[in-house]
Amino acid sequence: MTVRRFPTSVHIREVGPRDGLQNESTFVPTKDKIEWINQLSSSGLNYIEVTSFVNPKWIPALSDAEIVAKGIQKAPNVTYAALVPNMRGLIRALDSPIDEVSVFLSASESHNKKNINKTIRETEVVLAEVTREAIANHKSVRGYLSTVFGCPFEGKVDINEVIRLTDSLFEMGIEELSLGDTIGVANPVHVQIVLEALLKRYPQEKIAMHFHNTRGTAMANVLASLEMGITKFDSSLGGLGGCPYAPGASGNLATDDLHYMLTSMGIQTNIQTDKLHSAALFIQDKMNKPLDSYTVKYGMKD
Amino acid sequence: MTVRRFPTSVHIREVGPRDGLQNESTFVPTKDKIEWINQLSSSGLNYIEVTSFVNPKWIPALSDAEIVAKGIQKAPNVTYAALVPNMRGLIRALDSPIDEVSVFLSASESHNKKNINKTIRETEVVLAEVTREAIANHKSVRGYLSTVFGCPFEGKVDINEVIRLTDSLFEMGIEELSLGDTIGVANPVHVQIVLEALLKRYPQEKIAMHFHNTRGTAMANVLASLEMGITKFDSSLGGLGGCPYAPGASGNLATDDLHYMLTSMGIQTNIQTDKLHSAALFIQDKMNKPLDSYTVKYGMKD
Repeated sequence: MTVRRFPTSVHIREVGPRDGLQNESTFVPTKDKIEWINQLSSSGLNYIEVTSFVNPKWIPALSDAEIVAKGIQKAPNVTYAALVPNMRGLIRALDSPIDEVSVFLSASESHNKKNINKTIRETEVVLAEVTREAIANHKSVRGYLSTVFGCPFEGKVDINEVIRLTDSLFEMGIEELSLGDTIGVANPVHVQIVLEALLKRYPQEKIAMHFHNTRGTAMANVLASLEMGITKFDSSLGGLGGCPYAPGASGNLATDDLHYMLTSMGIQTNIQTDKLHSAALFIQDKMNKPLDSYTVKYGMKD
Repeated sequence: MTVRRFPTSVHIREVGPRDGLQNESTFVPTKDKIEWINQLSSSGLNYIEVTSFVNPKWIPALSDAEIVAKGIQKAPNVTYAALVPNMRGLIRALDSPIDEVSVFLSASESHNKKNINKTIRETEVVLAEVTREAIANHKSVRGYLSTVFGCPFEGKVDINEVIRLTDSLFEMGIEELSLGDTIGVANPVHVQIVLEALLKRYPQEKIAMHFHNTRGTAMANVLASLEMGITKFDSSLGGLGGCPYAPGASGNLATDDLHYMLTSMGIQTNIQTDKLHSAALFIQDKMNKPLDSYTVKYGMKD
């Protein structure tokens, strides 16, 4: 019943250029992607996932991965990352001036199968090789674990499988694990139960949270995570990305909304609000539709 | 850094028929209001603010207050409340079969002046008389304190004024005080600071929180309040009401979203989800526009 203490600063992992754009039907022209990422770089964000080296047939929105990765102006103190699903993707990534690669799998078998067309065990074999090769080529690796709080096909997800895969990914050599609430079903109690289990095994700075706001609970889940000492959060500027399972519904937690709440709580993000907002308006204009974030809808006033 | 304990049950104060409808430009026909309130009564909600006995010139959307209050079917175990601004409103309310009256004022002078056309001190004199007369006529009284966390004209609001007005309202004889974040600028730290001060003076069950989701922080503020032991929250079904200061932006926290998060956390609300959702679809149909809540937008799936 007492006032809680929160971390004094938080690192936001901007995933809009990858996770946001890959779930939008509009193809943003390559030069606009590059300009947008350059704007994000100048906002004070220190981590940007810029694209995905998946097969362009799967995700046409990001078919210009190489050109984007090579075209951006890299700022000092910013880590530029790209998603890679397999060795083929890694080879493309290694040919690009990105700093970090992200590997991903699901904590639920059905979602992994649908998303990656492999079993979880098969995927682990692939990711172990990708991670080893990436490290050998002096890239750091970030892991994404999807459907940690629920699966669109199976419903509940076993926390023991979440723990097993967390161990598996860290054993491969990832630097940081992002726990994904892929369909937006996490709640603060569930978040704290999962984090309590994982933080017995790994320090807080190794864990990032990736919330979706489909049912309006993302910000409460952020708060629950902050209370557990988590200081790393994934988000997408303007809430770009929507929800692939329900057109019109929300997907990724919006970077601008997250930045607003953190800043109002006195938690430092190192981001300049005006530059973040300009970058949101820029991509809104290119998407040619209203973005989903509260700060955009409200008009970005204080 | 440990998992928190939350209250086991929460009471939701449904303010949609009053606070929701008064901020909508559409006039909902009287018979539809009555039908909607009857649906809300059957959902398990145990508190419904059904209308406002203000001058119909100010709020034409609620000009049918008497007919609504007299037309609804009162269910047992439900408290039916109505807002009254002054003695004139109270006299109308006492002629209606409502159980409780709500009185209101702002914690910031400029907002109070703009909203009520009186100074705070002048308003206190009026509310003291209204409260005394209501109690003499066997009605309980609820107090609303607006702009507790910020004022659209003055910005910051003095916590000492919040404490002074809380004392003033409880001295008048109110049963419960609702702390309003009228413009949606509260954050979890601010919520906990205000509650820490007030809970030194009043027990948790005397305080309700009334959050607006204008900047996407309402649900995090609910969580922060739950952690302080608060078990009473105002909300509006479907997020009805919008934000009077920014067309298109969110206003009241949505009852259905609040119910979803609480239930998913294992906190009882006593509300039947299917009946709540039917009532949301009913009023959405009457408003002839999509409601703002996540559960409505997502399609009310699990």
